[in-house]
Amino acid sequence: FCSQAKVLYDFTAEPGNNELTVREGETITITNQGVGGGWIEAQNSRGEVGLVPEDYIEVRKCLMYVCMVFASNGNDPWSVWNQDATGGSSNNWAAQPEGTVTGKSAAPDPWGSNTQGHPQAYQGPGKRHWSGGTKMWSYPEAQLDCVVADPKKGSKMYGLKSYIEYQVIPNTTNRPVNHRYKHFDWLYERLLDKFGSAIPIPSLPDKQVTGRFEEEFIKMRMERLQGWMTRMCRHPVVSNSDVFQLFLTFKDEKDWKTGKRKAEKDEGVGVMIFSSIEPEGPDLDPIEVEQKCEQFSRFTKAMDDGVKDLLNVGQEHWKRCTGPLPKEYQRIGKAFQNLSSVFTSSGYQGEATLTDAMNEAGKTYEEIAQMVAEQPRKDLHFLMETNNEYKGLLGCFPDTIGVHKAAIEKVKEGDRLVAASKITAQDKATMAKRVSTMSYALQAEMNHFHSNRIYDYNRVMQLYLEEQVKFYETIAEKLRQAHSQFTTM
Amino acid sequence: FCSQAKVLYDFTAEPGNNELTVREGETITITNQGVGGGWIEAQNSRGEVGLVPEDYIEVRKCLMYVCMVFASNGNDPWSVWNQDATGGSSNNWAAQPEGTVTGKSAAPDPWGSNTQGHPQAYQGPGKRHWSGGTKMWSYPEAQLDCVVADPKKGSKMYGLKSYIEYQVIPNTTNRPVNHRYKHFDWLYERLLDKFGSAIPIPSLPDKQVTGRFEEEFIKMRMERLQGWMTRMCRHPVVSNSDVFQLFLTFKDEKDWKTGKRKAEKDEGVGVMIFSSIEPEGPDLDPIEVEQKCEQFSRFTKAMDDGVKDLLNVGQEHWKRCTGPLPKEYQRIGKAFQNLSSVFTSSGYQGEATLTDAMNEAGKTYEEIAQMVAEQPRKDLHFLMETNNEYKGLLGCFPDTIGVHKAAIEKVKEGDRLVAASKITAQDKATMAKRVSTMSYALQAEMNHFHSNRIYDYNRVMQLYLEEQVKFYETIAEKLRQAHSQFTTM
Repeated sequence: FCSQAKVLYDFTAEPGNNELTVREGETITITNQGVGGGWIEAQNSRGEVGLVPEDYIEVRKCLMYVCMVFASNGNDPWSVWNQDATGGSSNNWAAQPEGTVTGKSAAPDPWGSNTQGHPQAYQGPGKRHWSGGTKMWSYPEAQLDCVVADPKKGSKMYGLKSYIEYQVIPNTTNRPVNHRYKHFDWLYERLLDKFGSAIPIPSLPDKQVTGRFEEEFIKMRMERLQGWMTRMCRHPVVSNSDVFQLFLTFKDEKDWKTGKRKAEKDEGVGVMIFSSIEPEGPDLDPIEVEQKCEQFSRFTKAMDDGVKDLLNVGQEHWKRCTGPLPKEYQRIGKAFQNLSSVFTSSGYQGEATLTDAMNEAGKTYEEIAQMVAEQPRKDLHFLMETNNEYKGLLGCFPDTIGVHKAAIEKVKEGDRLVAASKITAQDKATMAKRVSTMSYALQAEMNHFHSNRIYDYNRVMQLYLEEQVKFYETIAEKLRQAHSQFTTM
Repeated sequence: FCSQAKVLYDFTAEPGNNELTVREGETITITNQGVGGGWIEAQNSRGEVGLVPEDYIEVRKCLMYVCMVFASNGNDPWSVWNQDATGGSSNNWAAQPEGTVTGKSAAPDPWGSNTQGHPQAYQGPGKRHWSGGTKMWSYPEAQLDCVVADPKKGSKMYGLKSYIEYQVIPNTTNRPVNHRYKHFDWLYERLLDKFGSAIPIPSLPDKQVTGRFEEEFIKMRMERLQGWMTRMCRHPVVSNSDVFQLFLTFKDEKDWKTGKRKAEKDEGVGVMIFSSIEPEGPDLDPIEVEQKCEQFSRFTKAMDDGVKDLLNVGQEHWKRCTGPLPKEYQRIGKAFQNLSSVFTSSGYQGEATLTDAMNEAGKTYEEIAQMVAEQPRKDLHFLMETNNEYKGLLGCFPDTIGVHKAAIEKVKEGDRLVAASKITAQDKATMAKRVSTMSYALQAEMNHFHSNRIYDYNRVMQLYLEEQVKFYETIAEKLRQAHSQFTTM
């Protein structure tokens, strides 16, 4: 049997060496993993077979999950499939109505309903969103949330090394824990390992070497870490995992160190995510799943384009609003004030009302200039941040979707493989079951994504428009005030 | 004796020909007008004397007015000084309190107080503006005004030549007369000839050959002709002149032709304007006049700079408001609408409210784009037009002021000239009297200018701010409407 892989770098075959030329991004089928010497044998989409360096390709984990029942190596993850969450997540989710995707047994809600101070907090997809048969994760009753705050400069090695420590306060314990950026990064790597096959884990905000202690940078990083943590908190599977809970609620340094070591040794990573998922519902029809997958693929691509377009125009608008536009308003203001002061020098009696009013009008335009320059931080900023987050999130989907499609293809081949006696009917049934589980997870994730998206865009559009209204109203009011200084003739 | 002249073109002396090299813009003193052969003898500021071609210089009329008592040629305008307005204006203005500048006898108000429909019409400088001793023109009780409207395409020579005819309707008769641009131009030339020595006559709107029948161009020209006519109507001396009244109120083609011929033969032009002025007050102190003149000179220079600065930034702002800014708002609008339509394609239930609201928000930004693009025509346009008018007006002053300053210099030399027996004491007294008359006229004109300026800027600033307030209020209202479409979570 075989598995698929993605080509990471271009590789050009040397003639006469039985090698295969491949291009970055190409998908190839592994026909023999046991060649040795750092090579594997693979087939490209044109049916050509040849050797490719092992380091140049990435074997698709999720597809492996479907195929690994046939794998011959000793590390067959299948061997843990029927064990009880060995090294995996200890989270046991509540039983849900048909169509929900849950863990294996019921568990008490770990954080009650402490949402005080978060009246607008995200509450998971409301039942009203769901039509019959929709696949969704099992959501806790109370939404986990946390605040990232109070960045402080810390140092170690007698001040030789300094760093920034952020306070992270979960709404479950209300007890702050301190984390450096590298701890967030560690968490990100753990979550990616553990859930990346099924759940898009967006990247952390960029590392930045220069200006690390600049206030502006720290504030911005904190805001983005907050956004990232909020997104992780909202995910019912991620937020309920041991490693995420450890990050938020470790009691002391010893607890943290122990938990860290345990998490790093966690064997319930990669494809094991699927073995911890137990869909409560019948196996899904691959054809129907394929269509949904296709639709979601088109959707994420279109949304990615839309988001990037908005980000581009937003960036341009930002530049104009903080650059030439306020400069122009300032020049208009200066021109009015200058004319006013020229008029004052006329020596003509009785124009104080005009010159005072023109001077005020000039000052008003200078104020407007400043308002214009400061406005993007008040509205465009959040629109851009949200769309940036979504750009990152959307970037995670193509791989997940691609793997899923390939798995479906394999199952669709099943009957032919059984007929050709390449696999048994039992093997085919197992494959179908596994793909169905994957599809449940993907659809739950799709629904999670949509529900979040609706919440986030509703919120950010409201915020944007609210601030825009305030902005234009304030300008109108300032100008009305300036206008009232002139005498009616 | 002598008079001053302005050099119109560069002239380079040929060596050995007793010629004088002069530069455009230079002021020279004419030392002998009777050289003949198209040459005059002149002295430059460095004391060098030589011949200059007559056609290369312009003798300063106003200065001639002061000096012409000594002129020896037969055309001495002085000879008409004590005649009763021969060929001059027949307007005889009402006697005014001390300090006003009037014509020689009282006349009935030719247009009553018909200002109906012009509630905001300019009413001349209010008495409250005037402190004791201020020199001002005698203003009519009712303000002449006219409407330029209804441009129509006419043709002659069996349609071979076509032109645009504008209706001009004065508030005195309410009877429309038709005029082509070339008639306005004819009027301009007459007013310049007749009043140019004392009163700044701003240029007509530019001639433009291409696109003469384009609607946009015709509308713009009409608006500017209206502005020019309004300004002329407001001037008590100009508006009361025969030629101006002819233009507004001629009864038929014959009346117009006769009046035209008469106006073209008018001998009360050039310096004769001063001979028709009879200041009611004591002779003015040249030192004091000089200071006022100096102040006004500085003022007009500073205002000219201020006006040009405002015009520059206005032009830049106009370009931005009609070019890149609305394009950006449109792109923002499109990006929102595009995201909305992507969201609609999600297949996810229950997001109609969001997608409708985002679509509306997108449309709103497209509307804002259009509003932004159209706004300059509603506010900036009038600010620009007014400042353009003032730019033209201010451009007329340096010459008037320069001539005035030179005349004062001559009078200040008077005592020395009498002592050197170059002129008699009587001559000196006549000169002083004339300069005083010129100064009365200049000061009346200064005050007329200031009074108009206060009125115009008050009005245009109010208009500008009013429209700006409306603009920002409308945007705020539109955005508030868009915001209300989102659901509160």
